[in-house]
Amino acid sequence: MVTKDSVLDYHKKARGKIESMPKVLIDSEEGLATFYTPGVSYVSEEIKNDISKAYDYTSKSNTVAIVSDGTRILGLGDIGPEAGLPVMEGKAALFKRFGGVDAVPICVNTKDEDEIVKLVKNISPVFGGINIEDIESPKSFRIARRLDEEIEIPVFHDDSQGTGVVALAALINALRLAGKDKNARIVVNGAGSAGFGITMQLLNSGYKNIVVLDSAGAIFKGREGMNFFKSELARLTNREGKSGSLQDLIRGADVFIGASVEGALKKGHISLMNRKPVVFALANPYPEISYEDAKSAGAYIVATGRSDKPNQVNNLLAFPGIMRGLLDVRSRRITYKMLHNAAVAISRSVGSKLEADYIIPSPFDRRFSLSTVPLIAATVAESAVAEGYAKHNITYAKERKKAKEIIARYLKMAARSRKFMVAALA
Amino acid sequence: MVTKDSVLDYHKKARGKIESMPKVLIDSEEGLATFYTPGVSYVSEEIKNDISKAYDYTSKSNTVAIVSDGTRILGLGDIGPEAGLPVMEGKAALFKRFGGVDAVPICVNTKDEDEIVKLVKNISPVFGGINIEDIESPKSFRIARRLDEEIEIPVFHDDSQGTGVVALAALINALRLAGKDKNARIVVNGAGSAGFGITMQLLNSGYKNIVVLDSAGAIFKGREGMNFFKSELARLTNREGKSGSLQDLIRGADVFIGASVEGALKKGHISLMNRKPVVFALANPYPEISYEDAKSAGAYIVATGRSDKPNQVNNLLAFPGIMRGLLDVRSRRITYKMLHNAAVAISRSVGSKLEADYIIPSPFDRRFSLSTVPLIAATVAESAVAEGYAKHNITYAKERKKAKEIIARYLKMAARSRKFMVAALA
Repeated sequence: MVTKDSVLDYHKKARGKIESMPKVLIDSEEGLATFYTPGVSYVSEEIKNDISKAYDYTSKSNTVAIVSDGTRILGLGDIGPEAGLPVMEGKAALFKRFGGVDAVPICVNTKDEDEIVKLVKNISPVFGGINIEDIESPKSFRIARRLDEEIEIPVFHDDSQGTGVVALAALINALRLAGKDKNARIVVNGAGSAGFGITMQLLNSGYKNIVVLDSAGAIFKGREGMNFFKSELARLTNREGKSGSLQDLIRGADVFIGASVEGALKKGHISLMNRKPVVFALANPYPEISYEDAKSAGAYIVATGRSDKPNQVNNLLAFPGIMRGLLDVRSRRITYKMLHNAAVAISRSVGSKLEADYIIPSPFDRRFSLSTVPLIAATVAESAVAEGYAKHNITYAKERKKAKEIIARYLKMAARSRKFMVAALA
Repeated sequence: MVTKDSVLDYHKKARGKIESMPKVLIDSEEGLATFYTPGVSYVSEEIKNDISKAYDYTSKSNTVAIVSDGTRILGLGDIGPEAGLPVMEGKAALFKRFGGVDAVPICVNTKDEDEIVKLVKNISPVFGGINIEDIESPKSFRIARRLDEEIEIPVFHDDSQGTGVVALAALINALRLAGKDKNARIVVNGAGSAGFGITMQLLNSGYKNIVVLDSAGAIFKGREGMNFFKSELARLTNREGKSGSLQDLIRGADVFIGASVEGALKKGHISLMNRKPVVFALANPYPEISYEDAKSAGAYIVATGRSDKPNQVNNLLAFPGIMRGLLDVRSRRITYKMLHNAAVAISRSVGSKLEADYIIPSPFDRRFSLSTVPLIAATVAESAVAEGYAKHNITYAKERKKAKEIIARYLKMAARSRKFMVAALA
């Protein structure tokens, strides 16, 4: 059982969840001369003459930085870079385990937006991608957007974009079961990283009937004191310009998506919704309404962020495969199109198992690792090629097997890593 | 044989020389809940309440950043961060292979001193130590010194301090064979990172009779146009205040140490030296004078940076053990005392094999990995404890076996990494 004591004990024994392992053997003068001085200077010269060759000869091609300033860690808030590190290490381990991606936690000792942007730009030569993680919004949006303009590697904002992908995947299946379509009335409660990301993804995937609320109520055009990103939401959603509270807006809605706080949705709210209500209560670790309460109030489908209930909306389903695809074709951008395709791949992977309590796969289903992740990678890579963002012209589009092989190889390596775990925990 | 083609081919197949491997198994909901959400928040809270616990629960305790701006890479000069990356990756692989230290290459896209200092400060929360590498001098000295004051983890300047340690180790044995002592007259040719580091180490180890030359000739008090670090050398060396060229100053010298350029030492210079001349021609990859030419000109002992000649002065002998010791006791500083002790440990490890062509061990001698590295680590750790810089009160001083066990464990892991290499190069 997972208790505070067991968690601390495991972490103390492992002393960190990732390590920097050599991929090559340096056990002789020849090995040293090949991989270090003097031979390595041949490699350095090649890259000096053509910087893009760093992808061929170095770990840049497969390595991402997980960048956080520790201001919005899980449910804990602003706890600083050191306290954020165990989370980033866990994420790094998952990147490798599920996507074969090498990830390095970069928890920074500054909360200053300009300094963070400059820092990421300055370290970007050694990375093939950036994962922005657990930075408070709207600063996180601004950082992601600025980096998107200023560096030539993809910048993935998982709290926002990853959550958007998995919520969309779940929504596609939920609406199919409910016999509804893209015209469904959707209420998004919360306009932080997750709420914004979900809304933007849904809009870009063709869902137009959306109202977003923050702690001050409905977001509508002309509301005062909104930041740039809320103004963007106001412009793109709530076409009828409604104001009011959740109580006002939930009436007649087909879908509730919560990315807010524990207890924000009441049973009474659900009874005001349209027939076959879909409730995604994604606040973590305590949802806006419990699975049981939502069900007993008449929700047709309930999803939460919890692993101990059905339909866990878990970013782990998305980020390893998305980054795998981006890295494999050296995409310099991430687009909503790519993310949309990733969501479709996830929703389809449920296949014939689809039912109200299984609208989204479990990451520990073997099929997910071996089949769905490669499919996500392949579709993201295909989109990148089709949209002209891929710098690497591999024939990924024609060879879907490619991602499968890459992932399978890394899974084999991950399996071997169990031995290391045993060593670490001995 | 190591050729340009073989080097490029190996690098292309491996696509990087290090990878970020999970140390823990996340293959179930329980694993996820232990090492990621929600369990990891227990760890984050512990660290939030006491930042020093990051050493107990995260990879900070064993991870160093190898920081370079790519301005002084090997013999290639200023070739940029991407082209520097293969060198830093090689170094990272060696840190793990020889010292069990996890190292992350951070090649930065700025040459600005202030930006580099700020960047390193900002990423320091996730590292237990910093290795400054291949940054042009004197900027490298300034960066190392400023960081030394401003961050609480040790900052190791390998090009300078590591070279100083290995040169000292070799010198101790060379002078023993030559029947000379600390009063030997030493000429250091070169005042860059290596020349400065060697000189400062020798001074702090009791060698007082030193003259240093740069491209403008002897460095002496009052010489015009010197930077801060050359002024420091002028203050501490050349007590007689001699000026002149190498031709002038080599006369009667017992020891020549070159950290300059190919061909800087002529056979005629050696004939001007005192009896039993000791010649360290450390310019890389082409020494100030070849081993053969130095010998034929009458040098009693010759050391170079080359692996294909006797007496290779190789930083690899020093940096893994030194960083191992620093990390194990969480030292917040590196001192000349620690470095001196490391050099003594290296020189002693030669043991009864000591002769003119074997004044320094080979890193690929099994004894070196299994016995000398732990000894270096132990003595550095002991010094750190004795000098009051150790934050971790392990009884390292009483248990020399400790480092041995740690290294042995990591060597076992490194041995396993061969399997990964096979996979990568398959």
